[in-house]
Amino acid sequence: MHLFYTPDIQPSVKQYFLNEEESKHCARVLRLNVGDEIQLIDGRGGFYVARIKDAHPKRTILDIVSVNEKYQQRNHYLHIAVAPTKNIERLEWFLEKATEIGIDEISLIICQRSERKEARVDRLNRIITSAVKQSIKAYHPVLNEPIPFAKFISAGLSGHGFIAHCNPGAKASLKSVLETGSKNTILIGPEGDFTENEVVAALNAGYKAITLGESRLRTETAALEACFEVNFLNRL
Amino acid sequence: MHLFYTPDIQPSVKQYFLNEEESKHCARVLRLNVGDEIQLIDGRGGFYVARIKDAHPKRTILDIVSVNEKYQQRNHYLHIAVAPTKNIERLEWFLEKATEIGIDEISLIICQRSERKEARVDRLNRIITSAVKQSIKAYHPVLNEPIPFAKFISAGLSGHGFIAHCNPGAKASLKSVLETGSKNTILIGPEGDFTENEVVAALNAGYKAITLGESRLRTETAALEACFEVNFLNRL
Repeated sequence: MHLFYTPDIQPSVKQYFLNEEESKHCARVLRLNVGDEIQLIDGRGGFYVARIKDAHPKRTILDIVSVNEKYQQRNHYLHIAVAPTKNIERLEWFLEKATEIGIDEISLIICQRSERKEARVDRLNRIITSAVKQSIKAYHPVLNEPIPFAKFISAGLSGHGFIAHCNPGAKASLKSVLETGSKNTILIGPEGDFTENEVVAALNAGYKAITLGESRLRTETAALEACFEVNFLNRL
Repeated sequence: MHLFYTPDIQPSVKQYFLNEEESKHCARVLRLNVGDEIQLIDGRGGFYVARIKDAHPKRTILDIVSVNEKYQQRNHYLHIAVAPTKNIERLEWFLEKATEIGIDEISLIICQRSERKEARVDRLNRIITSAVKQSIKAYHPVLNEPIPFAKFISAGLSGHGFIAHCNPGAKASLKSVLETGSKNTILIGPEGDFTENEVVAALNAGYKAITLGESRLRTETAALEACFEVNFLNRL
Protein backbone atom coordinates (compact mmCIF):
# COMPACT_ATOMS: atom_id res chain seq x y z
CA MET A 1 0.00 0.00 0.00
CA HIS A 2 1.33 3.50 -0.82
CA LEU A 3 2.48 5.65 2.09
CA PHE A 4 2.11 9.43 2.41
CA TYR A 5 3.71 11.73 4.96
CA THR A 6 1.01 14.14 6.16
CA PRO A 7 2.36 16.05 9.17
CA ASP A 8 -0.73 18.27 9.55
CA ILE A 9 -3.29 15.47 9.99
CA GLN A 10 -4.94 15.06 13.41
CA PRO A 11 -5.96 11.66 14.88
CA SER A 12 -9.52 12.94 15.47
CA VAL A 13 -10.39 13.63 11.82
CA LYS A 14 -12.74 11.40 9.84
CA GLN A 15 -11.79 12.96 6.52
CA TYR A 16 -8.56 14.44 5.16
CA PHE A 17 -7.58 16.38 2.02
CA LEU A 18 -4.17 15.70 0.47
CA ASN A 19 -2.34 18.91 -0.43
CA GLU A 20 -1.86 19.81 -4.09
CA GLU A 21 1.54 18.09 -4.41
CA GLU A 22 0.42 14.86 -2.73
CA SER A 23 -2.90 14.91 -4.60
CA LYS A 24 -1.06 15.09 -7.90
CA HIS A 25 1.26 12.28 -6.82
CA CYS A 26 -1.71 10.17 -5.70
CA ALA A 27 -4.07 10.74 -8.63
CA ARG A 28 -1.69 11.39 -11.54
CA VAL A 29 1.62 9.62 -10.74
CA LEU A 30 0.32 6.60 -8.83
CA ARG A 31 -3.03 6.70 -10.71
CA LEU A 32 -4.96 5.69 -7.62
CA ASN A 33 -8.74 5.77 -7.82
CA VAL A 34 -11.85 6.06 -5.68
CA GLY A 35 -11.96 3.19 -3.21
CA ASP A 36 -8.18 2.59 -3.20
CA GLU A 37 -6.58 2.60 0.24
CA ILE A 38 -3.35 4.40 1.18
CA GLN A 39 -1.35 4.77 4.39
CA LEU A 40 -0.63 8.08 6.11
CA ILE A 41 1.94 8.90 8.78
CA ASP A 42 1.95 12.17 10.72
CA GLY A 43 5.53 12.00 12.00
CA ARG A 44 4.33 12.15 15.61
CA GLY A 45 3.52 8.46 15.98
CA GLY A 46 0.19 8.45 14.15
CA PHE A 47 -0.30 5.76 11.49
CA TYR A 48 -3.50 5.98 9.40
CA VAL A 49 -5.23 3.90 6.76
CA ALA A 50 -7.37 6.03 4.44
CA ARG A 51 -9.68 5.30 1.50
CA ILE A 52 -9.87 7.60 -1.50
CA LYS A 53 -13.28 9.27 -1.73
CA ASP A 54 -12.41 11.62 -4.59
CA ALA A 55 -9.16 11.14 -6.55
CA HIS A 56 -8.97 14.85 -7.41
CA PRO A 57 -5.51 15.70 -8.89
CA LYS A 58 -5.32 18.90 -6.83
CA ARG A 59 -7.44 18.11 -3.79
CA THR A 60 -7.79 14.37 -3.21
CA ILE A 61 -10.38 13.60 -0.54
CA LEU A 62 -9.73 10.71 1.87
CA ASP A 63 -11.97 8.91 4.35
CA ILE A 64 -9.97 7.82 7.39
CA VAL A 65 -10.48 4.06 7.87
CA SER A 66 -8.29 3.48 10.93
CA VAL A 67 -5.86 5.31 13.20
CA ASN A 68 -3.02 4.00 15.35
CA GLU A 69 -1.85 6.95 17.44
CA LYS A 70 1.18 5.16 18.90
CA TYR A 71 2.52 3.15 15.97
CA GLN A 72 5.86 1.50 16.89
CA GLN A 73 6.19 3.87 19.84
CA ARG A 74 9.84 4.24 20.81
CA ASN A 75 10.79 3.25 24.37
CA HIS A 76 13.56 5.84 24.72
CA TYR A 77 14.59 9.24 23.35
CA LEU A 78 17.82 9.62 21.41
CA HIS A 79 19.26 13.00 20.48
CA ILE A 80 22.55 12.98 18.57
CA ALA A 81 24.45 16.24 18.15
CA VAL A 82 26.97 15.77 15.35
CA ALA A 83 29.38 18.07 13.54
CA PRO A 84 28.39 18.25 9.83
CA THR A 85 30.95 16.36 7.76
CA LYS A 86 33.17 18.17 5.25
CA ASN A 87 31.62 15.95 2.56
CA ILE A 88 27.89 16.55 3.09
CA GLU A 89 27.01 13.17 1.55
CA ARG A 90 28.49 11.49 4.60
CA LEU A 91 26.09 13.41 6.85
CA GLU A 92 23.22 12.54 4.49
CA TRP A 93 24.10 8.85 4.77
CA PHE A 94 24.07 9.13 8.55
CA LEU A 95 20.66 10.83 8.54
CA GLU A 96 19.15 8.14 6.30
CA LYS A 97 20.62 5.26 8.31
CA ALA A 98 19.86 6.77 11.72
CA THR A 99 16.24 7.28 10.63
CA GLU A 100 16.01 3.60 9.61
CA ILE A 101 17.63 2.37 12.83
CA GLY A 102 15.85 4.79 15.14
CA ILE A 103 16.56 8.35 16.28
CA ASP A 104 14.39 11.15 17.68
CA GLU A 105 16.39 14.34 17.26
CA ILE A 106 19.55 15.46 15.47
CA SER A 107 21.44 18.68 16.12
CA LEU A 108 24.22 19.98 13.87
CA ILE A 109 27.02 21.40 15.99
CA ILE A 110 29.74 23.65 14.59
CA CYS A 111 32.97 22.87 16.43
CA GLN A 112 36.42 24.46 16.61
CA ARG A 113 37.79 21.96 14.08
CA SER A 114 34.70 21.91 11.85
CA GLU A 115 35.65 22.49 8.21
CA ARG A 116 31.97 22.80 7.34
CA LYS A 117 30.25 25.69 9.12
CA GLU A 118 26.77 25.35 7.62
CA ALA A 119 24.28 22.85 6.26
CA ARG A 120 20.96 23.16 4.43
CA VAL A 121 18.43 21.78 6.89
CA ASP A 122 15.54 21.86 4.38
CA ARG A 123 17.46 19.62 1.99
CA LEU A 124 18.63 17.30 4.76
CA ASN A 125 15.08 17.09 6.08
CA ARG A 126 13.87 15.76 2.71
CA ILE A 127 16.39 12.91 3.05
CA ILE A 128 15.02 12.13 6.51
CA THR A 129 11.43 12.22 5.24
CA SER A 130 12.15 9.79 2.41
CA ALA A 131 13.87 7.44 4.89
CA VAL A 132 10.85 7.76 7.19
CA LYS A 133 8.56 6.69 4.34
CA GLN A 134 10.90 3.95 3.07
CA SER A 135 11.21 2.36 6.51
CA ILE A 136 7.57 3.08 7.47
CA LYS A 137 8.35 5.11 10.57
CA ALA A 138 5.45 6.95 12.18
CA TYR A 139 7.91 9.18 14.03
CA HIS A 140 9.76 11.80 11.97
CA PRO A 141 13.13 12.68 13.53
CA VAL A 142 13.58 16.37 14.31
CA LEU A 143 16.55 18.05 12.63
CA ASN A 144 17.73 21.31 14.21
CA GLU A 145 19.51 24.20 12.53
CA PRO A 146 23.32 24.31 12.87
CA ILE A 147 24.45 25.80 16.19
CA PRO A 148 27.90 26.57 17.63
CA PHE A 149 29.13 23.85 20.00
CA ALA A 150 29.51 26.25 22.94
CA LYS A 151 25.96 27.52 22.49
CA PHE A 152 24.60 23.96 22.27
CA ILE A 153 26.10 22.72 25.53
CA SER A 154 25.35 25.96 27.39
CA ALA A 155 21.67 25.59 26.44
CA GLY A 156 21.37 23.02 29.23
CA LEU A 157 21.00 19.26 29.20
CA SER A 158 17.68 17.41 29.37
CA GLY A 159 18.20 13.79 30.39
CA HIS A 160 21.66 12.19 30.23
CA GLY A 161 24.50 13.58 28.12
CA PHE A 162 27.56 11.89 26.65
CA ILE A 163 30.51 13.05 24.60
CA ALA A 164 32.33 10.54 22.39
CA HIS A 165 35.92 11.59 21.78
CA CYS A 166 39.35 10.12 21.06
CA ASN A 167 41.42 12.42 23.28
CA PRO A 168 43.18 10.95 26.33
CA GLY A 169 41.19 10.62 29.53
CA ALA A 170 38.84 8.25 31.33
CA LYS A 171 35.91 7.04 29.25
CA ALA A 172 33.04 4.66 29.89
CA SER A 173 31.29 2.37 27.42
CA LEU A 174 27.64 3.17 26.69
CA LYS A 175 26.82 -0.34 27.88
CA SER A 176 28.10 0.52 31.35
CA VAL A 177 26.42 3.92 31.72
CA LEU A 178 23.26 3.92 29.59
CA GLU A 179 19.93 3.77 31.40
CA THR A 180 17.47 1.99 29.12
CA GLY A 181 14.22 3.86 28.54
CA SER A 182 15.86 7.19 29.25
CA LYS A 183 16.50 10.38 27.29
CA ASN A 184 20.08 10.67 26.02
CA THR A 185 22.06 13.27 24.12
CA ILE A 186 25.32 12.18 22.50
CA LEU A 187 27.93 14.58 21.11
CA ILE A 188 29.95 13.48 18.06
CA GLY A 189 32.84 15.66 16.88
CA PRO A 190 34.10 16.68 13.43
CA GLU A 191 36.96 15.22 11.39
CA GLY A 192 39.93 15.89 13.70
CA ASP A 193 37.70 15.36 16.76
CA PHE A 194 36.73 17.76 19.55
CA THR A 195 39.46 19.98 21.01
CA GLU A 196 40.58 19.47 24.61
CA ASN A 197 38.74 22.70 25.51
CA GLU A 198 35.51 21.44 24.00
CA VAL A 199 35.76 18.15 25.91
CA VAL A 200 36.39 19.97 29.19
CA ALA A 201 33.50 22.33 28.51
CA ALA A 202 31.18 19.38 27.85
CA LEU A 203 32.28 17.57 31.01
CA ASN A 204 31.67 20.76 33.00
CA ALA A 205 28.21 21.00 31.42
CA GLY A 206 27.37 17.53 32.78
CA TYR A 207 28.24 15.35 29.77
CA LYS A 208 30.08 12.08 30.48
CA ALA A 209 32.97 10.91 28.29
CA ILE A 210 32.31 7.67 26.40
CA THR A 211 34.19 5.42 24.01
CA LEU A 212 32.61 3.71 20.99
CA GLY A 213 35.28 0.99 20.86
CA GLU A 214 38.88 0.67 19.74
CA SER A 215 38.33 1.34 16.05
CA ARG A 216 39.12 4.75 14.61
CA LEU A 217 35.77 5.80 13.16
CA ARG A 218 34.84 8.56 10.75
CA THR A 219 32.48 11.22 12.12
CA GLU A 220 29.38 9.76 10.46
CA THR A 221 30.37 6.20 11.42
CA ALA A 222 30.84 7.21 15.06
CA ALA A 223 27.43 8.91 15.06
CA LEU A 224 25.83 5.80 13.54
CA GLU A 225 27.68 3.51 15.97
CA ALA A 226 26.25 5.55 18.86
CA CYS A 227 22.79 5.31 17.29
CA PHE A 228 23.20 1.54 16.87
CA GLU A 229 24.40 1.06 20.45
CA VAL A 230 21.62 3.06 22.11
CA ASN A 231 18.87 1.36 20.11
CA PHE A 232 20.44 -2.07 20.61
CA LEU A 233 20.82 -1.61 24.37
CA ASN A 234 17.19 -0.47 24.55
CA ARG A 235 16.11 -3.65 22.72
CA LEU A 236 17.94 -6.08 25.04
CA MET B 1 52.71 9.28 10.14
CA HIS B 2 51.82 8.14 6.60
CA LEU B 3 50.40 4.64 6.22
CA PHE B 4 51.02 2.24 3.31
CA TYR B 5 49.24 -1.02 2.54
CA THR B 6 51.93 -3.55 1.57
CA PRO B 7 50.29 -7.01 1.43
CA ASP B 8 53.45 -8.79 0.24
CA ILE B 9 55.69 -7.81 3.17
CA GLN B 10 56.80 -10.55 5.60
CA PRO B 11 57.32 -9.97 9.37
CA SER B 12 60.83 -11.45 9.14
CA VAL B 13 62.28 -8.90 6.72
CA LYS B 14 64.72 -6.20 7.84
CA GLN B 15 64.40 -4.23 4.62
CA TYR B 16 61.51 -3.65 2.18
CA PHE B 17 61.15 -2.06 -1.24
CA LEU B 18 57.97 -0.11 -2.03
CA ASN B 19 56.54 -1.00 -5.44
CA GLU B 20 56.65 1.56 -8.23
CA GLU B 21 53.24 3.05 -7.47
CA GLU B 22 53.83 3.37 -3.72
CA SER B 23 57.39 4.60 -4.29
CA LYS B 24 56.08 7.40 -6.49
CA HIS B 25 53.42 8.24 -3.91
CA CYS B 26 56.03 8.25 -1.13
CA ALA B 27 58.81 10.18 -2.86
CA ARG B 28 56.93 12.42 -5.30
CA VAL B 29 53.43 12.99 -3.88
CA LEU B 30 54.21 12.98 -0.15
CA ARG B 31 57.78 14.22 -0.78
CA LEU B 32 59.16 12.07 2.02
CA ASN B 33 62.92 11.89 2.39
CA VAL B 34 65.70 9.71 3.77
CA GLY B 35 65.23 9.24 7.50
CA ASP B 36 61.46 9.86 7.46
CA GLU B 37 59.37 7.13 9.06
CA ILE B 38 56.20 5.60 7.63
CA GLN B 39 53.77 2.89 8.76
CA LEU B 40 53.06 -0.30 6.82
CA ILE B 41 50.18 -2.77 7.22
CA ASP B 42 50.17 -6.18 5.54
CA GLY B 43 46.42 -6.86 5.86
CA ARG B 44 47.10 -10.04 7.87
CA GLY B 45 47.55 -8.35 11.23
CA GLY B 46 51.08 -7.08 10.74
CA PHE B 47 51.77 -3.45 11.61
CA TYR B 48 55.23 -2.09 10.77
CA VAL B 49 57.18 1.10 11.32
CA ALA B 50 59.79 1.68 8.61
CA ARG B 51 62.44 4.34 7.95
CA ILE B 52 63.23 5.54 4.45
CA LYS B 53 66.78 4.55 3.45
CA ASP B 54 66.50 5.66 -0.17
CA ALA B 55 63.56 7.82 -1.31
CA HIS B 56 63.79 6.50 -4.88
CA PRO B 57 60.67 7.51 -6.89
CA LYS B 58 60.42 4.06 -8.47
CA ARG B 59 61.99 1.81 -5.85
CA THR B 60 61.98 3.37 -2.39
CA ILE B 61 64.07 1.38 0.08
CA LEU B 62 62.86 1.04 3.67
CA ASP B 63 64.58 -0.20 6.82
CA ILE B 64 62.08 -1.96 9.08
CA VAL B 65 62.20 -0.33 12.53
CA SER B 66 59.57 -2.38 14.35
CA VAL B 67 56.96 -5.06 13.71
CA ASN B 68 53.75 -5.88 15.57
CA GLU B 69 52.51 -9.14 14.07
CA LYS B 70 49.18 -9.14 15.90
CA TYR B 71 48.11 -5.50 15.78
CA GLN B 72 44.55 -5.07 17.15
CA GLN B 73 43.98 -8.79 16.73
CA ARG B 74 40.26 -9.53 16.38
CA ASN B 75 38.71 -11.86 18.97
CA HIS B 76 36.13 -13.37 16.61
CA TYR B 77 35.60 -14.03 12.90
CA LEU B 78 32.72 -12.37 11.05
CA HIS B 79 31.72 -13.36 7.53
CA ILE B 80 28.76 -11.50 6.02
CA ALA B 81 27.21 -12.80 2.81
CA VAL B 82 25.12 -10.02 1.32
CA ALA B 83 23.20 -9.59 -1.92
CA PRO B 84 24.74 -6.70 -3.92
CA THR B 85 22.37 -3.74 -3.88
CA LYS B 86 20.71 -2.47 -7.05
CA ASN B 87 22.46 0.85 -6.42
CA ILE B 88 26.10 -0.22 -6.07
CA GLU B 89 26.92 2.86 -3.95
CA ARG B 90 24.88 1.35 -1.14
CA LEU B 91 27.07 -1.76 -1.17
CA GLU B 92 30.19 0.41 -1.34
CA TRP B 93 28.98 2.35 1.69
CA PHE B 94 28.43 -0.91 3.58
CA LEU B 95 31.94 -2.14 2.71
CA GLU B 96 33.52 1.08 3.96
CA LYS B 97 31.52 1.15 7.19
CA ALA B 98 31.89 -2.59 7.89
CA THR B 99 35.67 -2.25 7.45
CA GLU B 100 35.72 0.60 9.97
CA ILE B 101 33.55 -1.25 12.50
CA GLY B 102 35.19 -4.64 11.99
CA ILE B 103 34.63 -7.51 9.55
CA ASP B 104 36.80 -10.38 8.30
CA GLU B 105 35.14 -11.65 5.12
CA ILE B 106 32.38 -10.53 2.75
CA SER B 107 30.69 -12.70 0.15
CA LEU B 108 28.39 -11.33 -2.55
CA ILE B 109 25.42 -13.65 -3.02
CA ILE B 110 23.14 -13.51 -6.03
CA CYS B 111 19.62 -14.35 -4.88
CA GLN B 112 16.33 -15.10 -6.62
CA ARG B 113 15.14 -11.50 -6.11
CA SER B 114 18.52 -9.88 -6.81
CA GLU B 115 18.19 -7.11 -9.40
CA ARG B 116 21.98 -6.86 -9.58
CA LYS B 117 23.63 -10.08 -10.75
CA GLU B 118 27.26 -8.93 -10.78
CA ALA B 119 29.71 -6.61 -9.03
CA ARG B 120 33.28 -5.53 -9.76
CA VAL B 121 35.29 -7.02 -6.92
CA ASP B 122 38.51 -5.20 -7.90
CA ARG B 123 36.80 -1.82 -7.65
CA LEU B 124 35.04 -2.76 -4.40
CA ASN B 125 38.32 -4.00 -2.96
CA ARG B 126 39.89 -0.58 -3.50
CA ILE B 127 37.13 0.92 -1.35
CA ILE B 128 37.89 -1.62 1.38
CA THR B 129 41.64 -0.89 1.16
CA SER B 130 41.14 2.86 1.53
CA ALA B 131 38.89 2.24 4.55
CA VAL B 132 41.54 -0.10 5.99
CA LYS B 133 44.13 2.68 5.68
CA GLN B 134 41.82 5.43 6.90
CA SER B 135 40.85 3.49 10.04
CA ILE B 136 44.38 2.01 10.50
CA LYS B 137 43.30 -1.62 10.38
CA ALA B 138 46.08 -4.20 10.15
CA TYR B 139 43.55 -6.77 8.94
CA HIS B 140 42.25 -6.37 5.38
CA PRO B 141 38.77 -7.90 5.00
CA VAL B 142 38.52 -10.55 2.28
CA LEU B 143 35.98 -9.84 -0.47
CA ASN B 144 34.85 -12.87 -2.49
CA GLU B 145 33.59 -12.95 -6.08
CA PRO B 146 29.78 -12.98 -6.54
CA ILE B 147 28.30 -16.45 -6.16
CA PRO B 148 24.74 -17.81 -6.56
CA PHE B 149 22.95 -18.15 -3.20
CA ALA B 150 22.33 -21.89 -3.67
CA LYS B 151 26.00 -22.50 -4.42
CA PHE B 152 27.10 -20.47 -1.40
CA ILE B 153 25.02 -22.35 1.15
CA SER B 154 25.74 -25.75 -0.42
CA ALA B 155 29.49 -25.04 -0.07
CA GLY B 156 29.16 -25.97 3.60
CA LEU B 157 29.21 -23.89 6.77
CA SER B 158 32.31 -23.30 8.88
CA GLY B 159 31.34 -22.11 12.37
CA HIS B 160 27.84 -20.80 13.08
CA GLY B 161 25.47 -19.61 10.38
CA PHE B 162 22.54 -17.20 10.53
CA ILE B 163 20.03 -15.89 8.02
CA ALA B 164 18.37 -12.52 8.64
CA HIS B 165 15.01 -12.31 6.90
CA CYS B 166 11.61 -10.62 7.24
CA ASN B 167 9.44 -13.57 6.20
CA PRO B 168 7.11 -15.15 8.80
CA GLY B 169 8.59 -17.80 11.09
CA ALA B 170 10.42 -18.15 14.38
CA LYS B 171 13.53 -15.99 14.70
CA ALA B 172 16.07 -15.44 17.46
CA SER B 173 17.98 -12.26 18.28
CA LEU B 174 21.75 -12.40 17.78
CA LYS B 175 22.09 -11.49 21.46
CA SER B 176 20.37 -14.75 22.41
CA VAL B 177 22.26 -17.08 20.05
CA LEU B 178 25.69 -15.57 19.38
CA GLU B 179 28.70 -17.26 20.98
CA THR B 180 31.32 -14.60 21.58
CA GLY B 181 34.76 -15.42 20.22
CA SER B 182 33.29 -17.70 17.58
CA LYS B 183 33.23 -17.78 13.79
CA ASN B 184 29.92 -16.60 12.33
CA THR B 185 28.45 -16.30 8.84
CA ILE B 186 25.39 -14.08 8.40
CA LEU B 187 23.21 -14.06 5.27
CA ILE B 188 21.59 -10.75 4.23
CA GLY B 189 19.09 -10.75 1.36
CA PRO B 190 18.45 -8.34 -1.54
CA GLU B 191 15.83 -5.62 -1.83
CA GLY B 192 12.63 -7.66 -1.61
CA ASP B 193 14.31 -10.09 0.81
CA PHE B 194 15.03 -13.80 0.47
CA THR B 195 12.31 -16.02 -1.00
CA GLU B 196 10.62 -18.64 1.18
CA ASN B 197 12.57 -21.31 -0.73
CA GLU B 198 15.88 -19.63 0.00
CA VAL B 199 15.08 -19.37 3.71
CA VAL B 200 14.10 -23.05 3.85
CA ALA B 201 17.27 -24.02 1.97
CA ALA B 202 19.41 -22.02 4.42
CA LEU B 203 17.69 -23.57 7.45
CA ASN B 204 18.25 -27.03 5.96
CA ALA B 205 21.91 -26.12 5.44
CA GLY B 206 22.28 -25.39 9.16
CA TYR B 207 21.69 -21.64 9.25
CA LYS B 208 19.50 -20.26 12.06
CA ALA B 209 16.89 -17.56 11.42
CA ILE B 210 17.56 -14.26 13.19
CA THR B 211 15.87 -10.88 13.49
CA LEU B 212 17.73 -7.56 13.52
CA GLY B 213 14.92 -5.72 15.28
CA GLU B 214 11.51 -4.31 14.42
CA SER B 215 12.65 -1.66 11.97
CA ARG B 216 12.36 -2.27 8.25
CA LEU B 217 15.97 -1.93 7.10
CA ARG B 218 17.48 -1.57 3.65
CA THR B 219 19.83 -4.36 2.55
CA GLU B 220 23.01 -2.42 3.33
CA THR B 221 21.61 -1.16 6.64
CA ALA B 222 20.67 -4.70 7.69
CA ALA B 223 24.15 -5.93 6.79
CA LEU B 224 25.74 -3.12 8.81
CA GLU B 225 23.34 -3.70 11.74
CA ALA B 226 24.47 -7.36 11.79
CA CYS B 227 28.11 -6.26 11.62
CA PHE B 228 27.57 -3.81 14.45
CA GLU B 229 25.70 -6.32 16.65
CA VAL B 230 28.35 -9.05 16.32
CA ASN B 231 31.23 -6.66 17.06
CA PHE B 232 29.34 -5.04 19.94
CA LEU B 233 28.43 -8.38 21.52
CA ASN B 234 32.08 -9.46 21.22
CA ARG B 235 33.16 -6.27 23.03
CA LEU B 236 30.82 -6.70 26.01
